[in-house]
Amino acid sequence: MSEAVHIKNTGLRGIAVADTKISFIDGEQGILIYRGYRIEELAEKSSFLETAFLLLYGALPDKKKLEEFTRHIAEERKLPDFIHGCLEKIPKQASPMDVLQASVPLLAAADPEVAEETREANVRKAIRLISRLPALVAAWHRIRNGLEPLPPDSGLTHAGNFLWQLHGEKPDPGTARDLDVCLILHADHTFNASTFACREVVSTQAHMYSGVAAGIGALSGPLHGGANARVMRMLMEIESEKDIPAWVRRQLEQGKKIMGMGHAVYKTTDPRAKILREMSRRLGEKFGQPKWYELSVRVEQAAVAEFERRGMMTLKPNVDFYSASVYCMMGIPADLMTPLFALSRIAGWCAHIIEEKFADAQKKPELYRPESEYIGMYCGQMGCVYQEIEDRKPASQS
Amino acid sequence: MSEAVHIKNTGLRGIAVADTKISFIDGEQGILIYRGYRIEELAEKSSFLETAFLLLYGALPDKKKLEEFTRHIAEERKLPDFIHGCLEKIPKQASPMDVLQASVPLLAAADPEVAEETREANVRKAIRLISRLPALVAAWHRIRNGLEPLPPDSGLTHAGNFLWQLHGEKPDPGTARDLDVCLILHADHTFNASTFACREVVSTQAHMYSGVAAGIGALSGPLHGGANARVMRMLMEIESEKDIPAWVRRQLEQGKKIMGMGHAVYKTTDPRAKILREMSRRLGEKFGQPKWYELSVRVEQAAVAEFERRGMMTLKPNVDFYSASVYCMMGIPADLMTPLFALSRIAGWCAHIIEEKFADAQKKPELYRPESEYIGMYCGQMGCVYQEIEDRKPASQS
Repeated sequence: MSEAVHIKNTGLRGIAVADTKISFIDGEQGILIYRGYRIEELAEKSSFLETAFLLLYGALPDKKKLEEFTRHIAEERKLPDFIHGCLEKIPKQASPMDVLQASVPLLAAADPEVAEETREANVRKAIRLISRLPALVAAWHRIRNGLEPLPPDSGLTHAGNFLWQLHGEKPDPGTARDLDVCLILHADHTFNASTFACREVVSTQAHMYSGVAAGIGALSGPLHGGANARVMRMLMEIESEKDIPAWVRRQLEQGKKIMGMGHAVYKTTDPRAKILREMSRRLGEKFGQPKWYELSVRVEQAAVAEFERRGMMTLKPNVDFYSASVYCMMGIPADLMTPLFALSRIAGWCAHIIEEKFADAQKKPELYRPESEYIGMYCGQMGCVYQEIEDRKPASQS
Repeated sequence: MSEAVHIKNTGLRGIAVADTKISFIDGEQGILIYRGYRIEELAEKSSFLETAFLLLYGALPDKKKLEEFTRHIAEERKLPDFIHGCLEKIPKQASPMDVLQASVPLLAAADPEVAEETREANVRKAIRLISRLPALVAAWHRIRNGLEPLPPDSGLTHAGNFLWQLHGEKPDPGTARDLDVCLILHADHTFNASTFACREVVSTQAHMYSGVAAGIGALSGPLHGGANARVMRMLMEIESEKDIPAWVRRQLEQGKKIMGMGHAVYKTTDPRAKILREMSRRLGEKFGQPKWYELSVRVEQAAVAEFERRGMMTLKPNVDFYSASVYCMMGIPADLMTPLFALSRIAGWCAHIIEEKFADAQKKPELYRPESEYIGMYCGQMGCVYQEIEDRKPASQS
């Protein structure tokens, strides 16, 4: 073990583990790029499906290609009947992220190409996943509320169709566009924990669905995608709080985090947070419901001031901080906010899985199989002595 | 990005990413240790449930503790009804590993303690998972064959009960013991790809089931747990091959692998393979069915000779090489061999998840969030120029 390089217990921070052509972050300057394009420009000019195409294929589509891609996505939206059958059996109180994680391997069972490991077949699997994840989230939400799942409407945008399948009302085009922008903003983010989980799993040559299910597991964690729901719950808890700065101080004194503040990579404001902040302000005005935005701003100001007082100058709002209020105003319940993250990030996950599986031979990453340093019991060359059960003393356990 | 340490595209080989007290491998000498005990001694003297206790708690149980643990495992074996209901909806041709991966988040929905993040609650979740994974695999196998799932029999050992729930016949005690030994051998193996996936996922503070589902995804890969089924299919394909050395040479000339040979960590024979080799020989004799053992030996000899001729001296049989023939003689179909691996490795996965979640504060690993090196498009400080769709040339895609 002595020859191993030790980077223990650091979560691989600052360690470049692979080459990628998919996205890039400059954490000092607050820059996020997908396939060469700044996130601000994509959020302004692109659509989620165009951005998904960009992530998957590495270039923006021309008109014909985008139409074709959009048609393929629309064609795949209908879920296999057996999946509705399974969803109906699941207890209604199940967490939507657990249901989503369970559903992805079921989609594998419905994919006739699941075992086909060409790049083209993997792109088709990616299209099915991008298409079906919103339908799954919407179907589960309706089933748990005793409602029938709704058929997709191919006349709507990707985000607009999700809102329709979820709520059973056609969204106004402005709100559909705002959600589409949210999906663009969340679609990829280099080697975050869920994307790394996807890549790690498929490095064993497991199929795409196996990797995506792992990504959903990682995304569910409160330190990752689970944070947006936590921000919303925090806002709901402190709605009637008079003195936000005092509340922030109490949280930090108790060793608690302010959800949605700070990021592993950004040392300045997350560029996505700036766009979401403005969207939250605008939606608050549009819906005559400014309270969540205003409360978020007060928390941000109090937290940043308190962090600065403590010398933690780099803790700024991340993507989850303003997405919570935005989603809330769009009628998304708190426990669907992380699934909503998943149905955007699926585009990045699939692009990374394809990159992992089909990198140039000389750049091809090997199966991820790190080492660890053993710091446990080891009684001599031959190991500890196994005593017969009658002779054992009640031992201390660790 | 320039400050990042670059260990790109090496799959983290030789990189120690965390401390662990759970297991240790000396790949040069062919030593595998769980919590201080040599694998050979555990295989000879321990049982799978005792070994699972050892992995989870860090010490061998005394008689009372082992009885209590065994009783808890037995009490949890019955699957929630809704899971049988879901399994019945799934298409019969679904891969058992996909079904297993889908079922684990469903078990989360059935666990009243799923959101409780104490060490004790996580140990109870681990007990439920260790108890229920065999029941899931057996239930799915019976359902896909149009048979009723069978209730567990707490009078049998963990392995014996699995064989009963799978086949509907009480196994002879010798075969049940042999399978129990197989479960001991597969129960842990440091930071392999599936265990690392489990740890990576729960480093986001996701719950244990989310991590285990990721582990199952990684295990399904042909470069990892999926290899035992591949070995079996290889043996079935070459059953009537006259000239095994010539077949081995043809495989290697075509750039193909000999399944079950070589290991990321061992540079000599895997200590588990030695035990399984002898078991395979013995079972062949016992069942009057020596052909799979004999064929395996011929492949091993031809492959090792050919590897040596090519200077690849360290490619020796791994754990999957002889487990295939052993499982086959126990009546396990090839596509249940990887699920069988999972229902042993679940003990190690859960131990690692608990270690990841509850390491001492100063040893506590952070969320895994590596970096990558961006080698894609980047057109100046401001990113590429986004052209309106009408102006785009059909671009080359990568």
